[in-house]
Amino acid sequence: MNGADALIETLAFNGVEACFANPGTSEMQFVSSLDRHPGIRPVLCLFEGVATGAADGYGRIAGQPACTLLHLGPGYGNGLANLHNARRAFTAVVNVIGDHATYHRRHDAPLASDIAAIAGANSVWVKSADSADGVGALAAEAIAASLGPPGGPASLILPADCAWSPTNSAPCKAERRAKAQAPSSAVEAAARRIRAAARPVLLLGTGACGEAELRAAGRLAGAGIRVLTDTFIARQRRGAGVFAPDRMMYFGEMALTDLTGVDLMVLVETVAPVAFFAYPDKPSVLVPDGCETLGLAARGEDGAAALEALADALGAPRQAKLQPLRLPERQTGPLTPAAAGAAIARHLPEGAIVSDDSVTSGQAIVNLTRTARPHDWLGLTGGAIGQGIPVAVGAAVAGGGRKVVSLNGDGAAMYTLQGLWTMAREGLDVTTVIFANNAYRILGIELGRTGAGEPGPAAAKLLGLGDPALQWASLAGGLGVPACRCDTAEAFEAAFARAMAQSGPTLIEAALA
Amino acid sequence: MNGADALIETLAFNGVEACFANPGTSEMQFVSSLDRHPGIRPVLCLFEGVATGAADGYGRIAGQPACTLLHLGPGYGNGLANLHNARRAFTAVVNVIGDHATYHRRHDAPLASDIAAIAGANSVWVKSADSADGVGALAAEAIAASLGPPGGPASLILPADCAWSPTNSAPCKAERRAKAQAPSSAVEAAARRIRAAARPVLLLGTGACGEAELRAAGRLAGAGIRVLTDTFIARQRRGAGVFAPDRMMYFGEMALTDLTGVDLMVLVETVAPVAFFAYPDKPSVLVPDGCETLGLAARGEDGAAALEALADALGAPRQAKLQPLRLPERQTGPLTPAAAGAAIARHLPEGAIVSDDSVTSGQAIVNLTRTARPHDWLGLTGGAIGQGIPVAVGAAVAGGGRKVVSLNGDGAAMYTLQGLWTMAREGLDVTTVIFANNAYRILGIELGRTGAGEPGPAAAKLLGLGDPALQWASLAGGLGVPACRCDTAEAFEAAFARAMAQSGPTLIEAALA
Repeated sequence: MNGADALIETLAFNGVEACFANPGTSEMQFVSSLDRHPGIRPVLCLFEGVATGAADGYGRIAGQPACTLLHLGPGYGNGLANLHNARRAFTAVVNVIGDHATYHRRHDAPLASDIAAIAGANSVWVKSADSADGVGALAAEAIAASLGPPGGPASLILPADCAWSPTNSAPCKAERRAKAQAPSSAVEAAARRIRAAARPVLLLGTGACGEAELRAAGRLAGAGIRVLTDTFIARQRRGAGVFAPDRMMYFGEMALTDLTGVDLMVLVETVAPVAFFAYPDKPSVLVPDGCETLGLAARGEDGAAALEALADALGAPRQAKLQPLRLPERQTGPLTPAAAGAAIARHLPEGAIVSDDSVTSGQAIVNLTRTARPHDWLGLTGGAIGQGIPVAVGAAVAGGGRKVVSLNGDGAAMYTLQGLWTMAREGLDVTTVIFANNAYRILGIELGRTGAGEPGPAAAKLLGLGDPALQWASLAGGLGVPACRCDTAEAFEAAFARAMAQSGPTLIEAALA
Repeated sequence: MNGADALIETLAFNGVEACFANPGTSEMQFVSSLDRHPGIRPVLCLFEGVATGAADGYGRIAGQPACTLLHLGPGYGNGLANLHNARRAFTAVVNVIGDHATYHRRHDAPLASDIAAIAGANSVWVKSADSADGVGALAAEAIAASLGPPGGPASLILPADCAWSPTNSAPCKAERRAKAQAPSSAVEAAARRIRAAARPVLLLGTGACGEAELRAAGRLAGAGIRVLTDTFIARQRRGAGVFAPDRMMYFGEMALTDLTGVDLMVLVETVAPVAFFAYPDKPSVLVPDGCETLGLAARGEDGAAALEALADALGAPRQAKLQPLRLPERQTGPLTPAAAGAAIARHLPEGAIVSDDSVTSGQAIVNLTRTARPHDWLGLTGGAIGQGIPVAVGAAVAGGGRKVVSLNGDGAAMYTLQGLWTMAREGLDVTTVIFANNAYRILGIELGRTGAGEPGPAAAKLLGLGDPALQWASLAGGLGVPACRCDTAEAFEAAFARAMAQSGPTLIEAALA
């Protein structure tokens, strides 16, 4: 038994069941050890951004961390953007980052770099092993840190000699902490202020959008209090039989218009909302002038219990306000995001998981699926596009047969299209939709909003993807995923219905009108 | 005029002529400013790893920095691996990393992260602007730092308000420093020790493989001194009419066998060689026991002048030992790396640039092209695979019509295949060869070398790419690049000859036997 075995035994002992890997030489002992520990499923990703996004998707669904296996600083770097998203989703992920042997580090070999510095910015915990005997205990620390609450990516640097040296250490148990109870004074204060407020709202953060939290928030909605969520939520239960809060609008001035007159904002596992970006002469903080903010439960505290207590204190009805099942009409004609959204809402099966990286095409789909069959929605928490395909990979591995739908802007999908191959390799039941508008459409909007005016030839060249047009069916086919292209509402409806009725990976290019 | 204009004017004033970009909202002012400054060519890349690798390739060929345009921490992260390679190549690159407006940073918006920490590990210089007035001077600092010598990637963080706020600052001139002269005492000491040594070698680093350095080193070879280069060289002049040093072997024990009996190693713009990775019971430092190491010129010093002075001191012949033009025979039968290498050597045109990321397929090609028509070879300096396609993009933009050949392992090419689209978009004259062995072949070798034994089912799953097999012609077609697949030596010879005879992007899948 060596350090790699000790690491894997501690991972497995604490419920880690999947490893999303893109290994190199320094990780060969870990790879070999996986052969001796069949309880951890090795999933090869052809680019590290797929591995880290998949671990995020896995963690969001499983509520348990997966591990990634990454190759030194550059390997971590390739996976950084989706770990940024995972940090903002508070998803438990354990990164195992192979490094040079401890005694080799001082020689500054070509692949050497400051891994701890690179990983630190998006890790809730980062440490390096320095002996095989110490690896297991560090792995347990990493798992505990990743789980939080609120949790996030933890990064364990594993020098090659700590992996290959012998050890007899036993598996270590990771400490698990439940969410702390919010202070009862916070509940009392919130009840008091809500009673006194003219127009109070509740704002739910990413940790407060599960079934229990929404049920409690839905009671408060039944008492006439408006409930919103942050714009991007790691995992939200939605659809028929679920309470549907509103969403903070993406653009700050629209959000503030939407909040006109609000004089109290009660925060549940979140902080006061801010604009995604700053713009000249537009506000950064999305709290109306004169509106008081008040914390009910902080991140890492039990928002569901606090919401139930608040509902009781306010005498809210026992039964939450729930969405009915109501499916949109079948659409015909040009393929717009709304037409695609109608087809998706109509055919999304019960229990589906939606991985959303659809940027400008997404809003119509979000609206149309509010009354679809019950499903989970995984949002772009950190704003780093290229999440949709990888998160779908991990969600499918964790989902135990649940249908996964991945919604992607064409620009966003290009970042991590390699994930399609992993879907093919693993036979994952994922339907990937690419909304092809042949542009970074959002940037055309943002150019004007930042005061940069209309695009000239140089700017147009940096915002357009149409020359040459990406051929998504060809790309998917090259990666082993069957695909089709649809350019009418009817064709998309048929293709999406077919994809929902069968199993296995498939891709639909929605060529938007 | 705003801060973005000031930045671009300073860039252009100092010879920056290309911007490899993957912008987001925070970079819109820079994008818009490019419309007002047509001297800088905007090149859109659909993934940041393409943009940074392209800037590396551009810098290696132009000897001037290109700039990248990256979107906050995640955008830099996506480009990190190829900046790691650029750091190891000492390539001048100026990263412009957009950030939130200065006053927006404290709100910790979703895309916020510690950019300076993430960028620091692979930057020779990293600073953030804090006003529009200061941007030009910082850009000049960044350019100067990137040029060194020895140089490397410099990272300028540009908050959005520093880009959009007005300024009247004039373009700033970047200080340029020539390589320092190596001390004459070092030349004298080297001459003295070489005369006394039984088996001296010269080791040339990545900055010492240009025409002037090789001419001088070739004189010393004519005097009977063995000359080697580091294993991976940023840019090496090769082929007929050029002196051909040997190369440090990749595997440490082979390198030490190759150096048996060497009692003096004279270092030119490099340091004592070390193994790429550590392995159990194998050496880290690749200097034979009892061998003395001696610096002739440090990195950033003028190796060419020092070599000429050394050659004079040793009375070496005036004329260097040069390679003849000698092309291999036409091959037939199964398509092996050697058969492909023969075809490449036979048809590589004079002045071609080769971007090499071919991993296990590369050694035969390196050997066979030693006597090909003169060309430049761009190696994988930092060991982070996924460089071959992006570096070819930048080399073609810088090359002014020179034919570029990109050699890639199939596993390596999958990291940054998005670069093919930029080749199509820009009409770049790049022939991309994919050596398809359907495996991370190198890892099959390394598994044994690290003592991890034979692969079982889990390990085999993490080393093999064949299930499903990647369809490169389909992938290239999806990105707008015409492609073919060859599985015999004859077919590859014909396809490669055709590619060399025509212009524009094309891809050849070499399906290896």
